[in-house]
Amino acid sequence: MDSGDRIRVERSGEQYEGVCMPSTTEDHVVLKLDGGYNIGIEREESHVEVLDSGVYDIDSEVDGDESSVVEIDPDLPTISLISTGGTIASTVDYRTGAVTSQFDAEDVLRAVPDLAGRANYRGRVVANILSENMTPEIWQDLAWAVHDEIENGADGVVVMHGTDTMQYTASALAFMLDTPVPIVFTGSQRSADRPSSDNVMNAVCAVEAAMSDCAEVLVCMHATENDTRCALHRGTRVRKDHTSRRNAFETIGNEPLGEVEYATETVTFQRPYDERGSTTLDIAPDLETDVELLKSTPGMDGAFLDLCDGKAGIVIEGTGLGHINTKFIDHIARLTDDGTAVVMTSQCLDGRVCDRVYDTGRDLLEAGVIEGETMLPGTAMVKLMWTLANRSSVRETMQTSLAGEITERSVPWT
Amino acid sequence: MDSGDRIRVERSGEQYEGVCMPSTTEDHVVLKLDGGYNIGIEREESHVEVLDSGVYDIDSEVDGDESSVVEIDPDLPTISLISTGGTIASTVDYRTGAVTSQFDAEDVLRAVPDLAGRANYRGRVVANILSENMTPEIWQDLAWAVHDEIENGADGVVVMHGTDTMQYTASALAFMLDTPVPIVFTGSQRSADRPSSDNVMNAVCAVEAAMSDCAEVLVCMHATENDTRCALHRGTRVRKDHTSRRNAFETIGNEPLGEVEYATETVTFQRPYDERGSTTLDIAPDLETDVELLKSTPGMDGAFLDLCDGKAGIVIEGTGLGHINTKFIDHIARLTDDGTAVVMTSQCLDGRVCDRVYDTGRDLLEAGVIEGETMLPGTAMVKLMWTLANRSSVRETMQTSLAGEITERSVPWT
Repeated sequence: MDSGDRIRVERSGEQYEGVCMPSTTEDHVVLKLDGGYNIGIEREESHVEVLDSGVYDIDSEVDGDESSVVEIDPDLPTISLISTGGTIASTVDYRTGAVTSQFDAEDVLRAVPDLAGRANYRGRVVANILSENMTPEIWQDLAWAVHDEIENGADGVVVMHGTDTMQYTASALAFMLDTPVPIVFTGSQRSADRPSSDNVMNAVCAVEAAMSDCAEVLVCMHATENDTRCALHRGTRVRKDHTSRRNAFETIGNEPLGEVEYATETVTFQRPYDERGSTTLDIAPDLETDVELLKSTPGMDGAFLDLCDGKAGIVIEGTGLGHINTKFIDHIARLTDDGTAVVMTSQCLDGRVCDRVYDTGRDLLEAGVIEGETMLPGTAMVKLMWTLANRSSVRETMQTSLAGEITERSVPWT
Repeated sequence: MDSGDRIRVERSGEQYEGVCMPSTTEDHVVLKLDGGYNIGIEREESHVEVLDSGVYDIDSEVDGDESSVVEIDPDLPTISLISTGGTIASTVDYRTGAVTSQFDAEDVLRAVPDLAGRANYRGRVVANILSENMTPEIWQDLAWAVHDEIENGADGVVVMHGTDTMQYTASALAFMLDTPVPIVFTGSQRSADRPSSDNVMNAVCAVEAAMSDCAEVLVCMHATENDTRCALHRGTRVRKDHTSRRNAFETIGNEPLGEVEYATETVTFQRPYDERGSTTLDIAPDLETDVELLKSTPGMDGAFLDLCDGKAGIVIEGTGLGHINTKFIDHIARLTDDGTAVVMTSQCLDGRVCDRVYDTGRDLLEAGVIEGETMLPGTAMVKLMWTLANRSSVRETMQTSLAGEITERSVPWT
């Protein structure tokens, strides 16, 4: 039995049929079921029957170069698959039972044979980390990699990324890059070894979105619990809202920008977007990383605010319309006097910050706070890092939508 | 023209008819429209006509004692209205244009004549603050006030509270009090002076809920944008999710526990709850306030973690299933070794923390982190303050649902 063989595995009275996939240990057979799910079955006490050998020529689909092109078909667009690690590029380490990130972009092609024939692929590895370990420095490496791929002719880019911090990285690229082609983040909530893995459908839909007309930074993940369609979220407006569900990602304050129907490979958009080719490729990768996100809670230790003295900027995740305990306002005034940019957002997540309504807010405005409009707190933090390194007019830049991060003006109420 | 008169105001070609309400300045007439909304109209260039005098005997409805009983009808239940400030007890200060909190519980009775006849009311003021200034110390004062009102015969308690931090205070009371009667938090997203104020319906529905069979700490706020019904949220599972909408509150991970239909005054529950009288009144008001909520973000300054050295406890708002940058795990192990309780929650908000899936999580468990199950980060912070002061088995208490804060066991995925 080799990888690529069609096999039947029988164990504990259950039968499984599918394609044998490469496995990282001797203890398990990894089987791709016909529905696209991969499952791992313990070899011990399993009976394996080879039904057909070499159904998928898995190992020859990609070669081992750092940036490699597979089976060039001049009629197909070129999509660059950039891997940063995360679950979509993960497998279970059966020795510890934990999921580790160890695949590169080429392994994704091996693991998702359904990608074949849709495009010419280039693979590139920028990092191989679980995304809780993502840093602003890797955002910069990634931005350069995406820039170079586009400069070298990629018609679209798919970034494979852990879901934990995907929203932060997608925001960072949205501010750092002007792009004439789609840049589509995708990932996986369940590793390829789990029966319910979402890696195949997410990867396929992301490639379809990368060939679409929308030249923006998008996040492509399951739209529902089912394997019917992926949502396309604007990178600056999306949040991972559930720890484990496959449809964990949500556009805050609106419907997703678009969607990809899996069965028909149809990409549709419900709202205006930047069209392919309407923007010239450019990169502004500098970041001022001396920026923090501070969440305001009842009883918060003022020492956390002391730590912000001398920082380039802070984003406060305030309460309600954008408030913080009144006792901290004098300190905030000193911070802004000393040149620290202080941006107010809301832990409500949805809705506009409006510090003109209540006394606390008006005092905060007098203390020099910049209202974060409708920006998500995490997006505002990333944008402030970018703004402080690239623009002299910090207040104006933070209050102007650069990449769809501020939703259109609305009266907070009537 | 006096408060309580039915009047018609004409200004700039527009006519308004309603009941004249007490105003805090000479510059404006405050008019309660027939729909229940209050509006403020500048006196200058206004023409006022008194249509009927003394329609509402506003001023005599309540007297000025700190705790007062109005018009006792032995057939009606007794509801205690406890005010802490916030928008429901606010009015616009027309000098600055900002909303200030200056009404006490009795003013709410004046402002919401619809409450009359539903119950015998007792008014009590615990604080008069906007809720961004709420502190654990005031949670304790409030818990005692609620305890004493119930001990003195209240059949239900309505707590009027600013919406910014209502979820934290409701959680605190849910842990501090065993209650045989409903304790219902309500507030207002728009002050009584705005045409769209939600104060009347929220107050009426909260009183109806306080007379219901559900002896839990509830949050009663608009369920939709319309004035049709209020949702009843369990205090430990609710979040303010929008800065300004009237239906800003959401139960995370489930439908609300119940609802109140405004027109019919019908209170219904969709899930099991603690029934009236099933619990004996008790209070455990102690809190260990040396507890912080720390949000993990890419690029977070490790100095924030240094600040947690020696603290009694911290709750981390991690990413995904409950992760933080791997480089901080050794520090977390030192914290737990030194006796700091470290609880992991997720900034996803919805879903269960599960640190058994990925390497990072398994390392965190080895470092002594307590998984926060499905608890909201803010609720976990409040519960940790309570647990450290009241229970010796911190881990077990944090992982056991005491007041509905942990939703029932579910497999994170299949």
